[in-house]
Order: sequence, then structure tokens, then C-alpha cells
Amino acid sequence: MANSRFEYVKNFERENYLLPDTYIVVRVDGRGFHKFSDEYNFEKPNDLRALNLMNKAAISLMKEIPEIVVAYGDSDEYSFLLRKDCELFERREAKLITTFSSSFSSYYQFYWAEFFVEPESILKPYRLPTFDARAVCYPNSGKIRDYFSWRQVDCHINNLYNTVFWNLVSKGNLTPEQAENRLIGTLASDKNEILFKEFAINYNNEPEIFKKGTVIVRELSNWKNDQEKVINTELTKKNLKNLKKADLKLYHTDIINDTFWQERPYLLI
Amino acid sequence: MANSRFEYVKNFERENYLLPDTYIVVRVDGRGFHKFSDEYNFEKPNDLRALNLMNKAAISLMKEIPEIVVAYGDSDEYSFLLRKDCELFERREAKLITTFSSSFSSYYQFYWAEFFVEPESILKPYRLPTFDARAVCYPNSGKIRDYFSWRQVDCHINNLYNTVFWNLVSKGNLTPEQAENRLIGTLASDKNEILFKEFAINYNNEPEIFKKGTVIVRELSNWKNDQEKVINTELTKKNLKNLKKADLKLYHTDIINDTFWQERPYLLI
Amino acid sequence: MANSRFEYVKNFERENYLLPDTYIVVRVDGRGFHKFSDEYNFEKPNDLRALNLMNKAAISLMKEIPEIVVAYGDSDEYSFLLRKDCELFERREAKLITTFSSSFSSYYQFYWAEFFVEPESILKPYRLPTFDARAVCYPNSGKIRDYFSWRQVDCHINNLYNTVFWNLVSKGNLTPEQAENRLIGTLASDKNEILFKEFAINYNNEPEIFKKGTVIVRELSNWKNDQEKVINTELTKKNLKNLKKADLKLYHTDIINDTFWQERPYLLI
Amino acid sequence: MANSRFEYVKNFERENYLLPDTYIVVRVDGRGFHKFSDEYNFEKPNDLRALNLMNKAAISLMKEIPEIVVAYGDSDEYSFLLRKDCELFERREAKLITTFSSSFSSYYQFYWAEFFVEPESILKPYRLPTFDARAVCYPNSGKIRDYFSWRQVDCHINNLYNTVFWNLVSKGNLTPEQAENRLIGTLASDKNEILFKEFAINYNNEPEIFKKGTVIVRELSNWKNDQEKVINTELTKKNLKNLKKADLKLYHTDIINDTFWQERPYLLI
Repeated sequence: MANSRFEYVKNFERENYLLPDTYIVVRVDGRGFHKFSDEYNFEKPNDLRALNLMNKAAISLMKEIPEIVVAYGDSDEYSFLLRKDCELFERREAKLITTFSSSFSSYYQFYWAEFFVEPESILKPYRLPTFDARAVCYPNSGKIRDYFSWRQVDCHINNLYNTVFWNLVSKGNLTPEQAENRLIGTLASDKNEILFKEFAINYNNEPEIFKKGTVIVRELSNWKNDQEKVINTELTKKNLKNLKKADLKLYHTDIINDTFWQERPYLLI
Repeated sequence: MANSRFEYVKNFERENYLLPDTYIVVRVDGRGFHKFSDEYNFEKPNDLRALNLMNKAAISLMKEIPEIVVAYGDSDEYSFLLRKDCELFERREAKLITTFSSSFSSYYQFYWAEFFVEPESILKPYRLPTFDARAVCYPNSGKIRDYFSWRQVDCHINNLYNTVFWNLVSKGNLTPEQAENRLIGTLASDKNEILFKEFAINYNNEPEIFKKGTVIVRELSNWKNDQEKVINTELTKKNLKNLKKADLKLYHTDIINDTFWQERPYLLI
Repeated sequence: MANSRFEYVKNFERENYLLPDTYIVVRVDGRGFHKFSDEYNFEKPNDLRALNLMNKAAISLMKEIPEIVVAYGDSDEYSFLLRKDCELFERREAKLITTFSSSFSSYYQFYWAEFFVEPESILKPYRLPTFDARAVCYPNSGKIRDYFSWRQVDCHINNLYNTVFWNLVSKGNLTPEQAENRLIGTLASDKNEILFKEFAINYNNEPEIFKKGTVIVRELSNWKNDQEKVINTELTKKNLKNLKKADLKLYHTDIINDTFWQERPYLLI
Repeated sequence: MANSRFEYVKNFERENYLLPDTYIVVRVDGRGFHKFSDEYNFEKPNDLRALNLMNKAAISLMKEIPEIVVAYGDSDEYSFLLRKDCELFERREAKLITTFSSSFSSYYQFYWAEFFVEPESILKPYRLPTFDARAVCYPNSGKIRDYFSWRQVDCHINNLYNTVFWNLVSKGNLTPEQAENRLIGTLASDKNEILFKEFAINYNNEPEIFKKGTVIVRELSNWKNDQEKVINTELTKKNLKNLKKADLKLYHTDIINDTFWQERPYLLI
């Protein structure tokens, strides 16, 4: 409606339209979550309430944005996959990433008190939960597989380290600096041994949500019946519509090996 | 810490470093606020509670990010100015805009219940307040002046229209369609006349916050004493540090004419 | 070697690294070739000398830049394909396109006098042959196939039109405007009929270089022997090295159907 | 004219429109000129024929593109300045840089034989002169001053080094390696002293074209009369039109100090 001689300043705006026909991964990341987790007394090395809240925020976002077909999260980050043919916001980068960052942050704050009790349930205005976001294009499904493998390996490496570190501090009575020094140069096998010998912990028995993170996926209903057809051809329009309405399922499972993806070929077609 | 053969996928990330030595304006914009304002029964054409909440969120963001020197907002949008020498997040566009969108959204939700009472105070998970954001570079102060003029003229044009429109609907008993048709092709003078003749409203007497929007500015303490020096030279490092700690003041005033800017030359140096 | 307080201006340079693992097509295009072809009396609708010179320039560029695996040209344009794994100039867009534009222009000028005789052989400084260039990324081989199909269909459509147009002008004694009007709304079949009935020309018998343009391709030596292995796996490093040294072959053949590409699967692996 | 189902591949093209109202510098740079200068027996440390040819190519480009207001070159590079309001090619980066790279290369080849005699006058197809190009935006005139200062300081530093180096090699009978080692860690004063004491060369007496490079500028006719008016206001449209047609003048003069720019304020308005 508005029109004025000042309107030319709009010409300085620049849009980045992400390359068509490429997969888009949007990853949100907690801002300053080291201090945030201290402020609200997160349990170390993992706080189950916080992880469940992350998952709730992710599910809420996936309900809001049906173009997201699968998501993976651990710690204070979550990665969301958009299909190659996704035209959300005409693939404008700024719209995509600010929508994801603001919506995810909003859900996290909104559901906070469902997962935390007093006094932690009371958020403080100088330490609200916020998330930045970035979008990355990948040209083919192999890269997407490697992307999710990267994040899950990262989860594993960090969790093993943190599990040993916090046991050394809380049960081993080391200072954080001493624990850090103790772990310099150690391999995964060394860390497993410390856990087992010094703290009687078998890392394999740790909760799957800690070791593997969480994957949330649209499970296409009646998929099994249509499977052959879909694998060999493009997803039909009808299937695609079904996909957007498909149930969301949450797992703590391996997404590095082929099984997860082979059972859901429609994710990467 | 984490390292794996999958890490190469990071090479697909692209950073956009905004051109150095240019002003950056970040504008946040309410997502779907038409439906949002219906959901929570906003008063039309203006809801003072909502405007005050926008201002509270903006002030909170400016306290968090001292690099913002001045901000202007009306309706469901806010524009924030970063100085030319601002190096926040190394001027990475994605970091800047997702930080602004998520933080502004967080403050807005957090302070919501301070401004709205039951039943509106209870936010619904399917209609949370969120804001997208964009960053635009401007090479000189003249463009920045024109940018803020653009937004304030826009505020005026929209507010005059909305004021007449909602009076026609609420007091004139027109349907929205009838009101819209009545206003097609009308000039500002026509709208003023409708308000005056039919509803005995003198638009000039409407609240300034509706007509002019809100500007929030860092007022440099003891500025008057240093003024000459600063006008003629670069801001000293000491002054710049003071600017980041300066008090935030809120006005509903004209920012199109020179006065506002001439009284605060440090904003555009 | 050089260092000074002015060197900070380098920070304003921006590099665009093209997305990894995508095909890159660089297309060069004659600048102002309408006037250029008039200046040097090009035969209409096609000048065989000019087309052969384009091909010579393209071959020269492909000898200089072994990363180019196939090229297609017609009229005053040429498209060059770089493989997905191409790391030429670290995939910096500006380096790529200015190298292609300047080198192609240089070869064209250098070989000019081999193809044109006096007086056309004497180039005039106010009308030198130059070419602009652009680079486009494509995420998969299907898009590359469609890209080359697009250019060859374009060649066909333009050549049919130009063949009729110039016959109407040169033999039919129409003015250019009359010829243009005559052709408005005509289909390919109409144009074929005009050629056949009025000028006794069977379009199918026109030279292939006019109808199909020119494709230049690296023919992998001993390819037949290695074919199965290469189709089913990645190109081995040895094969890739061979590809860079492979003979360049020139054809005027269909590149829309599968045959051309199926016989050379290494182009799109 | 052409239309087909393949045309969608155009959607993958990306244009970068350079930020409005900023100065644009386009710099062309000789590709592989170390080998090029060896191939054609350039005199060391400076070849006057080659420098004059660079200047001829630059002047030719400035005649072709009237939007260039001033240019500076030395060795195998040339920088061209476009005014802030320049709308050439709608400020599309790819068009700008490939036009500059291909045109400059073309002029250089075309005029080559005017400056070099046999056998050097005969260019070899495997070693043609080509130039890459880049475009950089600068937001204000201060940055442009610093940009040109950067290039002229660079010219000076390189020329002093090369002058000493080649005297050590050609008259001092050092190998290139010995000359290089001799110069490690030396200051400008040391180099001046070597020249003076060992080779009786006073660097100050070296030709200005070697020490200062070359600046080519549009000299606005009748400028003196209009000067006051233009300094205090925008360039009038008439003046701007005159500027495009203004005579080109070539100097070997200081462009670091204020004088050159103060005498031609219209360059940076």
C-alpha cells in the first residue's frame, strides 16, 4: 500500500535463492548453551529433560513445516532435511533460516516448563534459550547420508568424551583441568577402559538417546505396499502429499548404516 | 573435538560476509501476524499492548547486542541499525539474521504475559509469535536516513488507512469489503475528511505512537560536552565504548526531518 | 612482497566458490555479434567460416584446459562442461569465467585470418571479437543432459527460422520486416513447407553443422576395453588422467537422445 | 524465440547484482605473465614496449566503456574505476568482469605487433596474452583513494626490488638465487644504496613510468569554470554526459597524495 520517494532503498536488498534440485539441510544450534546449561543446572554429561525438550521442539517444527522429511538431533543442535524439490519460501535462504531459528526457539521456550520444574522452570530474561541456524545445499543423496553420519559420529565422540570427563570430575574427584589433561591423546578404547575399570560403567549399556541421538522421521503410511513402485520411479504426487501428512516417529537408532535409509527410500528420492 | 571421514560435508557450507564499512540494517517482521492478531483478539486498528510488547522486545535485544545504535518499529516489524564498523559475528549474514530473529521472538514470547491478561495471556502452541529477519547493507548515511524515512512514511500511510478502515467497519457499519471499496483511490486528504466528518476524529490528535511509530536510541551521556569534537572527527574509542553502554531512550517522534539525527551525529558517523 | 597500510582494501574482495560436487557449465557468448557479423560480411543465415573458427577456438580452449570433457556450440556461443570433481581454480567463479572469456576471445582473434580472407581478414580495432561468459552449477547428470538438449533444440529452432527468413529476403525479395511478419505464428511444419514449395529446399538436406551445431568430446582411448568397469564404478584415477589426455573429436550429431551419452558414460560419472 | 521443455535449466543460473551506490573497481591481471614475458623476451626489470601496450589496451577499453572514469596500471595489471551511479550491465558481476577480461585481452593482442618487432611480433598459439578480472565494491571515496594508493605503493615496492635484483644478476653476475638471498631482509634504503654504490644508479632518476606506473583519466573540458558548482553539488546530468566524452589523458604521477584527486573532484563525487 505504501509508496514514497524513499522506497528505492528496497533495491539494496539481496536474496539468495538456494540452487534448485539440491537437498537442503537446515541446522539449528543453541546459542551460548554452555552458560545456559549452567544457569539452569543441567545434569552432566547429559540432561534427559533438555534432550526431550529438544525433541519436542523438533517435532513441533516438523508439524508446522511438512516439507521436512527427517530430522536428527543431539545435545543442543538439530538438523532438518528438506527434499530436493522443496520450494518452501521459493528456497530463499534468509526466509528459511530465520523461520527455523525463530520457530525452534519459540517452541523450546513454550514447552520449557513441561520438562523442567521449579526453580529451573522459571526462565530468566537475561538467559533465554535461542538458536541460530544455517542452510547447506547438497547435490545428491550420498552427501546427505554422509551429512547425517557426520552428525551421529560427532554425537558418539562427544558423548563418550563427556561421559568419561564428568565421571572423572564427579566420581573421580579430579578438577575439570585434571580431567581434561587425563584425556589428552586417549583413544576411544582408552576411554571405554577408564569407564569400565574406574567407574564400573559399560559404555554400551548407556542409554541409546545419549549414544545415538534422536532421529525423527515421517513414516509413510501403507508404504510397504507401494514400495517397489516408488523405489523405481519418482514419488507420485499422491505419495508426496501423503508424505507431508505422514506420522512422525522418533527413534534412537543408527543412521550411518544403510538399513534406516533402505527402509525409507522415499526420504532421498 | 570430533573428527571423521564424513567431516568433508562441511565444505558445502557457504558464508556470506557482508561488505565491510557499510551500515547494516536488520529488520525483523512478524510471521503471519494477521492470523496471530485475530487469534489473540488484538484491538483494531492498533493494539497498544502489542506495540508496547514490541518495544520491550526491541529494548531487550538492544541491551543484549550493544552494537545496535538505533531502532525503529511499528506494527509487527522492527529495524535495527548496526554501525559501519560493526564486526559482530564477523559480519556473517546467517549468524546475524538468525540471532536477531530468534532473540526477538524469544523476548516477545517471554514478556507476552506482562502485556496481555487472560484469556489472551495464554499462548497457544499452534500460534506462537515468531519473526523472520533480513539484513541489508547501505553504503552511506544518506541511504540510512532514507531507509528510516521509508519505514516511518510507511507507518503513517498504513495507520491512516487502517484508522479510517476500522472506523468505517466498527462505527460505520460497513463490511470489510465495502470499507475497502470506499477507500479505493482516496487521497490522504480524503481519508482525513472521512475521519473528521463521519467520525469526528481529528487524525492529528491520534496518539503519536500510532502515527509515528517508536524509535529507540542510545543517548550518549555527556554528549553535549564532547559534541564538537565528535562531529568533526571520528568517534574516539572511548566514545564508542560509552555509546555501547549509553542509556536507551524511547521516543515517538519524527525521524524523517534532520533534527533527530543532527542532535545525535554519533549515530551515523 | 608488497605490504602497506593500504592493503586492508583487499578485505572488500568477495569470492564465490561454486558448490562442490556439482557439474559446472561455462557458456561463452559473442558480444554484439549482430553488428560484428554485419561488419565482416558474414553469409546469412550461416557462415561456415565463422562456425569453423568457433570450433577451432573451442578445441584450442579444450587443449589448454583438460578439465573440459565435452563442449557444444552453435552460432556465436559455446558451452563447456566441467566434471563434478573439477577443482580448477578451486572452483572460484570469477577466475573460471574470466579465464574462459579471455582465452576464447584470444583464440578466436588469433585464428581469424586462417578462416577469413581479405578484406574481411583485417580486423578493425573498433569491432574486435569478444565473448562474455557465465558459469552455472547443475547437481546431477539429468540436468546436464537437459542443458545440452536445451542448447541443441535452440540451435534447431533458430536455424530453421533463419533459413526461411533469409530465403524470403534474398530469393523471395521480401524486406526483413515483411519476412518477419510472414513468419509470425508459423509452426515448424509451416516453415518446412515454405522452404520446400517456394525455394525447393528440403530442410533435412541442409548441412548437419547448421542443423545440429557442433559437439567436441574427449574420446577415451581403449575405452571399449574398460567400459564395464568404469560404468559400474567411479572413474579410476588412471582413467581420469587418461581422459585429460584423450583425443578431441568433433561431431555434428544428435546429443538429445541417449546414444551419444551412453557411448561415453565417463562424461557424466 | 526458442522454447522447449528443456528451458527450465535456465532457472539454475544465478546473477550477482553488485550493491548499488558503491564504487566498482575492476582489475585485470595477466595470466601466467612470468612465462609469457620469457617467451617473448621481455626486457628486465621493465619492458617499455609491454608497458606502452598495456596503456594502449587500457585506453582502448576506456574509449569503448565511457563509464570508466579513471584507470591505473603497472606491470601486467590494470585497475578501472566505475562511478557509484554506474548502471553498466545492471551491475551484473559476471557480465562486467567477462567483458573487461575479454575486451582487454583482445586489444592487447590486436595492438601487439605495433609494439613488438620480429621475431617477438609473431604470437604463438600456445602462449597468447590473456587476462583474468575481478570486481570489488567500495562504499566511499576514502576507500577508493586507499585502493589506488595500495596499487601504486605495490608498484613502487616491486619496481625497486626488481631493479636491484636484475642489476645484481645482469651486471653483478649473481645467479637469481644469489640475488634473492642477497636481498632478503633489506630495507628500501638498503636497496637504494646497493643501486647507488654498486651500479651507480640513482633510483630517483629511473623513468617515472617504472616508478609510478600509469594513470589514465578523463579530463573534463572547461572543468575549471564549473568547478565550484560541481564540488558543492552533485554532478549535473550535462556534466556527467560531458565526462563520458571527455578527453583521456595519460600520466605517470603520484596518486597517493591529495593533489591528483583534488584537481578532479568529479572522479569521486
